Amino acid sequence: MRAGIKSRGLDLALIVSDRPAAVAGVFTRSTVVGAPVALCRRRVRRGFARGVVVNSGCSNVAMGERGRRDAAEMSRLAALAVGAAPNEMLVASTGVIGKPLPMPRIRRGIDSAVAALSETGLALAAEAIRTTDTFAKLAHARVVLGGRRVTLAGIAKGSGMIEPDMGTLLAFLLTDAAASPVYLRGALRRAADASFNRVTVDGETSTSDTLLLFANAAAGNTPLRSPNGRDARAFEEALAEVAISLAREVARDGEGATRLVTVVVREARTPAEAERAARRIANSLLVKTALFGGDANWGRILQTVGAGRVHLALERTQVRLGGVVVFRRGASAGPAARARAARALRAREIEVEVRLGAGRAQTHVWTCDLSYDYVRINADYTT
Amino acid sequence: MRAGIKSRGLDLALIVSDRPAAVAGVFTRSTVVGAPVALCRRRVRRGFARGVVVNSGCSNVAMGERGRRDAAEMSRLAALAVGAAPNEMLVASTGVIGKPLPMPRIRRGIDSAVAALSETGLALAAEAIRTTDTFAKLAHARVVLGGRRVTLAGIAKGSGMIEPDMGTLLAFLLTDAAASPVYLRGALRRAADASFNRVTVDGETSTSDTLLLFANAAAGNTPLRSPNGRDARAFEEALAEVAISLAREVARDGEGATRLVTVVVREARTPAEAERAARRIANSLLVKTALFGGDANWGRILQTVGAGRVHLALERTQVRLGGVVVFRRGASAGPAARARAARALRAREIEVEVRLGAGRAQTHVWTCDLSYDYVRINADYTT
Repeated sequence: MRAGIKSRGLDLALIVSDRPAAVAGVFTRSTVVGAPVALCRRRVRRGFARGVVVNSGCSNVAMGERGRRDAAEMSRLAALAVGAAPNEMLVASTGVIGKPLPMPRIRRGIDSAVAALSETGLALAAEAIRTTDTFAKLAHARVVLGGRRVTLAGIAKGSGMIEPDMGTLLAFLLTDAAASPVYLRGALRRAADASFNRVTVDGETSTSDTLLLFANAAAGNTPLRSPNGRDARAFEEALAEVAISLAREVARDGEGATRLVTVVVREARTPAEAERAARRIANSLLVKTALFGGDANWGRILQTVGAGRVHLALERTQVRLGGVVVFRRGASAGPAARARAARALRAREIEVEVRLGAGRAQTHVWTCDLSYDYVRINADYTT
Repeated sequence: MRAGIKSRGLDLALIVSDRPAAVAGVFTRSTVVGAPVALCRRRVRRGFARGVVVNSGCSNVAMGERGRRDAAEMSRLAALAVGAAPNEMLVASTGVIGKPLPMPRIRRGIDSAVAALSETGLALAAEAIRTTDTFAKLAHARVVLGGRRVTLAGIAKGSGMIEPDMGTLLAFLLTDAAASPVYLRGALRRAADASFNRVTVDGETSTSDTLLLFANAAAGNTPLRSPNGRDARAFEEALAEVAISLAREVARDGEGATRLVTVVVREARTPAEAERAARRIANSLLVKTALFGGDANWGRILQTVGAGRVHLALERTQVRLGGVVVFRRGASAGPAARARAARALRAREIEVEVRLGAGRAQTHVWTCDLSYDYVRINADYTT
């Protein structure tokens, strides 16, 4: 629905299950969190919920007691309107911080949203949670569990930052699978680690990052209760597929991004060093601007890995950009290789791979390049 | 001198003491270091040196055995030319990585540099170590130690990145004070912690960062041997003054910078949290672009502090931008305050102050804003 919170476009979404759904959540680890996150964290512990009401345009962060009251009222109104108990409804808000939610508009918006609930409304919900995202993000998957067809679907919004404040990752995953809340919690954590936790646009974490998974058992499969067994493996594979698809779209749609970049680190001494190297490369301003310029600049990649005090054996280190080896055995692969790599870097999706020659650990993260538009979006605002 | 390493401008400097000088050094902590850094680290341990030969335009990094040979030859030639033992001469190189030093030009350059040595040449040396720095950086101070007049002078180059690779901090501090190498090492470490280690332009550490302090005892003061006592205090105050002045110039001249920004964090729970909060603010792309746009955006500041998992009591947190309080007691100070702060942020030097209300620790760092020019300099290059 459009409730009139943003200056234009859809800005209110209501996602409701026709029966209580097992629920799990993953939230920002920031020490500054919005009232909606605090409320969700508490309610998700119950293990069951009916749905979530989401608005874009105002994050309800740093609003103190008023913020807590508004988040509670927003979820209570949505719960009442769909016939659920107040604590069965979750809430998420994204947008400007430090401004109060326009509650009269939200009240009217919730009424209209309930009237407009539809089984085919998910694409509209994906629209309504956008802030400066340039496109709506949806994904879905099907899987058969014990003869029952199970559907998974998800929507997300990404790290488009909004005037004048921060970007927020919101993602809502929905399935008709039957699963216990305890199992669901583990499955969501594993899916998040393989997907959204592998995305970095600018190294920031929002006050409002929220990932929720609802499983309402409508498919009638034998409830999933443990990560062991064929059904759980099939379910988690499908869950990861949906989550990874959404996470990659979030990276691709980073502010001002012109390229989706997969950073792969191999042969690190430890998993922690692999992780640190990958995140340093992905967040390095020098690397991100070089990728924007299509520069096959292995020097900046080695420099930021070294600055992170990651062990590497330079004589065994290899850097591959867009599939082309540009550095190997301690030296440049030469100007011809560099020119070939520069051509490969013109693609919309590129891979940066570094082999450190120091061990066997490996990892990957998704990110994007850094363009003039990033500066424009974040500097040219109107207060 | 101009040796012809860069396409234009001075690119070779020779700094020599007319007698052996006590020496101390602070170097990059990167795991990828250039051959000159490795050589300096080793030689500085002797405690005495005659000087340093420096080139810009080529960093002699990632050149393997050839790089080590070239660095050794460069320092040996400079030592021979000024009548010093080979291991009394240090070496520093900054510029493109992955390309060999043009040794014939360097050999000729060292000969000319020796012929041109002058007591008034320091400003030329400051020119010659520049890469994309937009201005040369010099500072000096005088202090009286036990009736003897002591002079300190220093030059530095900053984090202007050069095509196609990384930026490097080089700084050379010179004094005629008499001091033991052991004392000098501690004094330099303390001065570095108060100055260059408080500067961040983009969170990167170069492979070649080098800070050297030479003290040749020509002033005839009673040699400084311990940080206790009035003389040592006076000397270290003057040393810090020179180092801080150079460090601030480095921040002011960050790539594409339009503003020198001092980030002050107070009332943190621990010194480590104060440090983490200050560095997160200083390196946050969202904060840096907001400052470029002159946006009094307290939301981004609190967001990045929170994302760093720094403890803060929001109800007692205060954010002050350009001297204007824009957030206090858990809420915005209102649009009028924000507009006043936006006007204050138009200055060339601005202060960002955050009080976290969580303890008594405090710190500060210097940085700069992030403009279109940062992206231009680092993306629009020619290979």
